[in-house]
Amino acid sequence: MQYKNLGRSGLKVSQLSYGAWVSFGNQLDVKEAKSILQCCRDHGVNFFDNAEVYANGRAEEIMGQAIRELGWKRSDIVVSTKIFWGGPGPNDKGLSRKHIIEGTKASLKRLEMDYVDVIYCHRADSSTPIEETVRAMNYVIDHGWAYYWGTSEWSAQQITEAWGIAHRLDLVGPIVEQPEYNLLSRHKVESEYLPLYSNYGLGLTTWSPLASGVLTGKYNSGTPPPDSRFALDNYKNLASRSLVDDVLQKVRGLKPIADELGVPLSQLAIAWCASNPNVSSVITGATKEYQVALASVMALPVAFHLS
Amino acid sequence: MQYKNLGRSGLKVSQLSYGAWVSFGNQLDVKEAKSILQCCRDHGVNFFDNAEVYANGRAEEIMGQAIRELGWKRSDIVVSTKIFWGGPGPNDKGLSRKHIIEGTKASLKRLEMDYVDVIYCHRADSSTPIEETVRAMNYVIDHGWAYYWGTSEWSAQQITEAWGIAHRLDLVGPIVEQPEYNLLSRHKVESEYLPLYSNYGLGLTTWSPLASGVLTGKYNSGTPPPDSRFALDNYKNLASRSLVDDVLQKVRGLKPIADELGVPLSQLAIAWCASNPNVSSVITGATKEYQVALASVMALPVAFHLS
Amino acid sequence: MQYKNLGRSGLKVSQLSYGAWVSFGNQLDVKEAKSILQCCRDHGVNFFDNAEVYANGRAEEIMGQAIRELGWKRSDIVVSTKIFWGGPGPNDKGLSRKHIIEGTKASLKRLEMDYVDVIYCHRADSSTPIEETVRAMNYVIDHGWAYYWGTSEWSAQQITEAWGIAHRLDLVGPIVEQPEYNLLSRHKVESEYLPLYSNYGLGLTTWSPLASGVLTGKYNSGTPPPDSRFALDNYKNLASRSLVDDVLQKVRGLKPIADELGVPLSQLAIAWCASNPNVSSVITGATKEYQVALASVMALPVAFHLS
Amino acid sequence: MQYKNLGRSGLKVSQLSYGAWVSFGNQLDVKEAKSILQCCRDHGVNFFDNAEVYANGRAEEIMGQAIRELGWKRSDIVVSTKIFWGGPGPNDKGLSRKHIIEGTKASLKRLEMDYVDVIYCHRADSSTPIEETVRAMNYVIDHGWAYYWGTSEWSAQQITEAWGIAHRLDLVGPIVEQPEYNLLSRHKVESEYLPLYSNYGLGLTTWSPLASGVLTGKYNSGTPPPDSRFALDNYKNLASRSLVDDVLQKVRGLKPIADELGVPLSQLAIAWCASNPNVSSVITGATKEYQVALASVMALPVAFHLS
Repeated sequence: MQYKNLGRSGLKVSQLSYGAWVSFGNQLDVKEAKSILQCCRDHGVNFFDNAEVYANGRAEEIMGQAIRELGWKRSDIVVSTKIFWGGPGPNDKGLSRKHIIEGTKASLKRLEMDYVDVIYCHRADSSTPIEETVRAMNYVIDHGWAYYWGTSEWSAQQITEAWGIAHRLDLVGPIVEQPEYNLLSRHKVESEYLPLYSNYGLGLTTWSPLASGVLTGKYNSGTPPPDSRFALDNYKNLASRSLVDDVLQKVRGLKPIADELGVPLSQLAIAWCASNPNVSSVITGATKEYQVALASVMALPVAFHLS
Repeated sequence: MQYKNLGRSGLKVSQLSYGAWVSFGNQLDVKEAKSILQCCRDHGVNFFDNAEVYANGRAEEIMGQAIRELGWKRSDIVVSTKIFWGGPGPNDKGLSRKHIIEGTKASLKRLEMDYVDVIYCHRADSSTPIEETVRAMNYVIDHGWAYYWGTSEWSAQQITEAWGIAHRLDLVGPIVEQPEYNLLSRHKVESEYLPLYSNYGLGLTTWSPLASGVLTGKYNSGTPPPDSRFALDNYKNLASRSLVDDVLQKVRGLKPIADELGVPLSQLAIAWCASNPNVSSVITGATKEYQVALASVMALPVAFHLS
Repeated sequence: MQYKNLGRSGLKVSQLSYGAWVSFGNQLDVKEAKSILQCCRDHGVNFFDNAEVYANGRAEEIMGQAIRELGWKRSDIVVSTKIFWGGPGPNDKGLSRKHIIEGTKASLKRLEMDYVDVIYCHRADSSTPIEETVRAMNYVIDHGWAYYWGTSEWSAQQITEAWGIAHRLDLVGPIVEQPEYNLLSRHKVESEYLPLYSNYGLGLTTWSPLASGVLTGKYNSGTPPPDSRFALDNYKNLASRSLVDDVLQKVRGLKPIADELGVPLSQLAIAWCASNPNVSSVITGATKEYQVALASVMALPVAFHLS
Repeated sequence: MQYKNLGRSGLKVSQLSYGAWVSFGNQLDVKEAKSILQCCRDHGVNFFDNAEVYANGRAEEIMGQAIRELGWKRSDIVVSTKIFWGGPGPNDKGLSRKHIIEGTKASLKRLEMDYVDVIYCHRADSSTPIEETVRAMNYVIDHGWAYYWGTSEWSAQQITEAWGIAHRLDLVGPIVEQPEYNLLSRHKVESEYLPLYSNYGLGLTTWSPLASGVLTGKYNSGTPPPDSRFALDNYKNLASRSLVDDVLQKVRGLKPIADELGVPLSQLAIAWCASNPNVSSVITGATKEYQVALASVMALPVAFHLS
């Protein structure tokens, strides 16, 4: 496993990382979580991503308990969480000083950790001035609850505004953005964010490398297999948006390339993300059944870049 | 109940809020306080205002105990207090660094809370440089004892001076002013403060929406009813200043409008304050007997603005 | 007793204050200290001065214990201490970051207080850059161990340099200087410091209002009475420097003025210091025997200024 | 023993100091450490240097325990440690915010101390922006875990960049650099760093005054004595690099000078380092056997400078 600096910061993250999204607290409880986390660690993964909203906080509780029971040394790993959706009340969401501080404290309590390494703004909040958010994130860092902060799914304009405020006030700016990025969704990373890499040293931790599974090729027939996510009722909307003709055509076109390289399409898709020099880490997720496949991805030499 | 941002900040406050002034510690003890606070909460009120001077600190003790006994989650509510009059000694009042820090600590101890959401300067203090006050308020915020700070009954010049200092020192300025505001007292809010709303994003939490009861119409005859506040000896001065002819004439002129809208005059008066877009929250106060009326006010759709 | 702002700060100090110098830990122990402190408080004194060097720290222990046993409310009084001579080691003295932080912590431990109101640099330290001292004093204030800081016996140039650094770094500067000041020693207060009062709002707490007793008139004969301080062996040097002809002539010349005013010379001398508008507080010291005299001084109306 | 300011700071360090490198945890355990530390203290040494990497942290544990058992007053001594190599993981080394904070906490835990006086960056880290390191070092200082920070083996360019960042952000810069310096290795101290002494008031604590023993003269024959370090297998590389002809020739040329002065060559070599006015302290190391020799070095009057 290779380690990259998270953007221009000194933090080192494994090129592939594990995210608790979808799985922890839904499909996986502590016992399975321990098994999958240890599998990641065995393959050199040191970066584990979470969010206050994942399974309404249960994902943080599971990850925290699993890591404690595994007896890992805190400094050996990089843990992140994300703040935005903390509950139903008017002050439970968004990026106000109140919610950032209350939300961070609540996340740390669920994780039973003194700090996370990186804390993200899970989305942009148009109802809070970015200055308030930049100040609150610096408060979190000054209090030792996080070492770095970042954003997720912010626009290039919003990240630039945050950096302008940080520079004006001598505060620290966001070192990382967490966008969706995969072979089917490339605009933000490869175009919109371009000036940010050199201007601010922005790093990327990307999610959805397989485009919700579409890039495994398992939906290539156009009909979701009965045991797949898109066959579930509450994913019907996403399925109908994802499984359109021109998308499936693209995916089918990738199959011969994967075959030529002698790797499954999913590995090709993940390796392609990781090979982008602006991507610090590709966040993968995996349920128990997928564990073996995950292991082989972790072991994958990332040595090619298809642009 | 609608929620508004407190000025340009990311904090969300209910359009109507509850203030402990006059009632807590004087007419109401913990049991009644719990009942009235729960009534507010049931109608969507999330903002509760207090001050170190209310009933000499007893109002804070009652509110804190009531909230604990009600088992509310701290992050669900917005609690504020105000510092200025803390006792008889030369350093017990005003906005010196000493009194702001000592007063805030004492308030939090009485509330048995780790922090308030907003801390106000209850008045301006001409004997302390505003820079000292701005720095002390930032000290309070940096220590996590409050998320935001504001002023009460400061002049536009004083608020502007505070913002100039905050900008020069890269500190946070006051996000909110708490003035008196009602149909009979409009100058500050509608004229003096005008540049502050856009310049500094100033929000308002307003007090005395009923002008000490005058806007209920119950004094329209000119003679205070025997069970009213103005019939009490220690309110005689205020009564004689409030119940003058031109005031009563104005109030009498509002009655037909309220009748046409089919609401009591008091509801009209409160709704009128809340409908001002620069007003974030209208602070109401209510004794036990008034509870039913309060409930109906809380339920009031605020949809008109008489200017 | 009148209260004045300490310079341009919002802190209010009594015009006459009590200093532990010479007496606490030498002539007075806890029991006598309690009696004399209560006498001061009864006459409206709210400001009590100390230093880490007084009786090698014993003065702080006595004052702290006395105040605890008297049951005073901490916010009712203003307590100060001074850092410079903390012990015999190379890092035990001066104004390095190390000694300021270690010395302040040790003083607070002896006082058994969480904070002092004002912390002074007891002298200037030419072997430490003033920037290091300004930063360390702000560290002390940011940690809540003091509300304000000041200097003692610094030159106008040094105070000006400290303010320049504080302004450049957006830190707080020294609000008060503690010089010797009395009818026989006027240059610093009335000439050298002149620009500092308006430029920086500098306040003064002055010591030695009686010029080591010379201004009581008891040495007017030129021969120290057997029970006086100057009759002691280890005061011989000071005595020979103080009791020179032109000094005694000045003191003898003041006697008729005091007689005309109907007050003892010592009261005239103290009142004269206090009447200087740039003097915030005159620090007096008193042993047990002097207690009655002290009481009468405290009760003195300060209404004249002899320039 | 003379004390010098550590560069332009107010911290006073003994001209000769003791470093735990090589000895603590390797040749010496707590008992011997106590004996050698007390010997140093008896000769006036007040400065003791350590690093997280020395004996993988054991050197810090030994020094901390020894000092506790000796009952020394913390403020009487100056303790330093250095952060860079904390373990085998990707985030265990270097000068990222994560490793500086985690490493400092771990060092303090091993030392069982609340703070060190000086914390060094043990090397430069080209994979972390210097701004991140400057900010993290200021975080450590703001939290009270160290009073000052410095560098070790940084280039003049890197130190200058750190000071530029510190000045731009109003933070504190590195007050001291710890380079190798001895009669055989003079370039950095006497040439490269020249502008830093006056520009930034940089102080120096130097290591290897005897050039790994070469300047004792014991290798002058060219063949390491059987009980010397260079006779050991894992020092063969260093030995072959050190014991080259032109080096030995220089050392042999120094012998007559030492003889003329009537001191052993090792004392001449150490005193020569200490006599450089830009050197604040010369760090010596000594095993038990060397204790007597050390004592005589400590007692050495440093009064000559051979340039």
